Amino acid sequence: MALKLYGAPMSTCTSRVLTCLHEKDLDFELVLVDLFAGEHKQPPFLVKNPFGQIPALEDDDLTVFESRAITSYVAEKFKETGYDLTRHQNIKEAALVKVWTEVESQQFHPAIAPIIFQFFVAPLQGNSPDQTIIDANLEKLGKVLDIYEAKLTSTKYLAGDFYSLADLHHLPYAYYLMKTPAASVVNERPHVKAWWEDISTRPAFKKVAEGMNFGEK
Amino acid sequence: MALKLYGAPMSTCTSRVLTCLHEKDLDFELVLVDLFAGEHKQPPFLVKNPFGQIPALEDDDLTVFESRAITSYVAEKFKETGYDLTRHQNIKEAALVKVWTEVESQQFHPAIAPIIFQFFVAPLQGNSPDQTIIDANLEKLGKVLDIYEAKLTSTKYLAGDFYSLADLHHLPYAYYLMKTPAASVVNERPHVKAWWEDISTRPAFKKVAEGMNFGEK
Repeated sequence: MALKLYGAPMSTCTSRVLTCLHEKDLDFELVLVDLFAGEHKQPPFLVKNPFGQIPALEDDDLTVFESRAITSYVAEKFKETGYDLTRHQNIKEAALVKVWTEVESQQFHPAIAPIIFQFFVAPLQGNSPDQTIIDANLEKLGKVLDIYEAKLTSTKYLAGDFYSLADLHHLPYAYYLMKTPAASVVNERPHVKAWWEDISTRPAFKKVAEGMNFGEK
Repeated sequence: MALKLYGAPMSTCTSRVLTCLHEKDLDFELVLVDLFAGEHKQPPFLVKNPFGQIPALEDDDLTVFESRAITSYVAEKFKETGYDLTRHQNIKEAALVKVWTEVESQQFHPAIAPIIFQFFVAPLQGNSPDQTIIDANLEKLGKVLDIYEAKLTSTKYLAGDFYSLADLHHLPYAYYLMKTPAASVVNERPHVKAWWEDISTRPAFKKVAEGMNFGEK
């Protein structure tokens, strides 16, 4: 049975998984979940993810949720297919992929998520973006990216001289960030900028980005 | 060469890794990092973790940081040693361990961390705990634990009927929470309470908890 991904193309977390599925050259069916109709908070979806958040992946009788758990599951189950995202043949490189995947989760994400919320979600809820929240989190994000800038002077990608899940996980939020005035936080750091230009132009992500039109007509 | 863990016993993130090392029956050396002297922000430690946070693990010439990356690395490298924390022989169970490990990271942690900060860290900085922050995050945590309560009516642990890394990752923050009036958020939910009593009395964690005396004399 083919993989079934329940989600929405404009969603950051769905895009994270879609990019992974494309990197792994896998066949899958995208089943749209209508966020505006609140479908993710209704019982048929809550059976898949009790937290009521997209995406969720069905692989035969197994359901996996949380985007980073899905990518990790897919990268491991299909490790011999498509691009190797986890460096599974080298335990040291694989460890560094884990480290920088956690850095995305614990350092980058908590800083960038409120910025994207203010620019893209708040207006949908009838509110203006709160500049105080944006500024406070841009300062946090800048400090994280200072460390990325230093790291990327010695290796081409975060975990080493190879693209991995650690880089991939950054794509969706950074993509939306780059459409805002806050893009300067990336553009002012030459190695971070070069890294962004590299990872965001991989064919797997370019395909996904076509569907990422949050807040656009 | 033995594993070297740089950290401090009272630190939640160090405790997370210590518990994992004990579950895996591994020999290691704990190298104390003096947080009050700011040792984690000085160059010798920043070489190990540029984010200046404990813990960091040295395994021969490899350095791993971010507590959840360390536990994942240790659980995988030493999968045949001690207790199996990742269900590595069963891909479906292993996937569910990944899911609930991410739930801890993305749902539980963001709600509990500010509560622990207010109760334990703010006073060290000369501030009173901010009850507004505590209450807002207790409400968030309660909603997360409502889902845990429902899940734990059908399986004994989060990922299934087996203790795993997903449960283990909750221990340090929950341990400090249980020393505060906010413990009611656990005690009011019978399955969550039984789960907590089970996982917190495993010998590996009991050994670690002896050193967890944040803010006590």
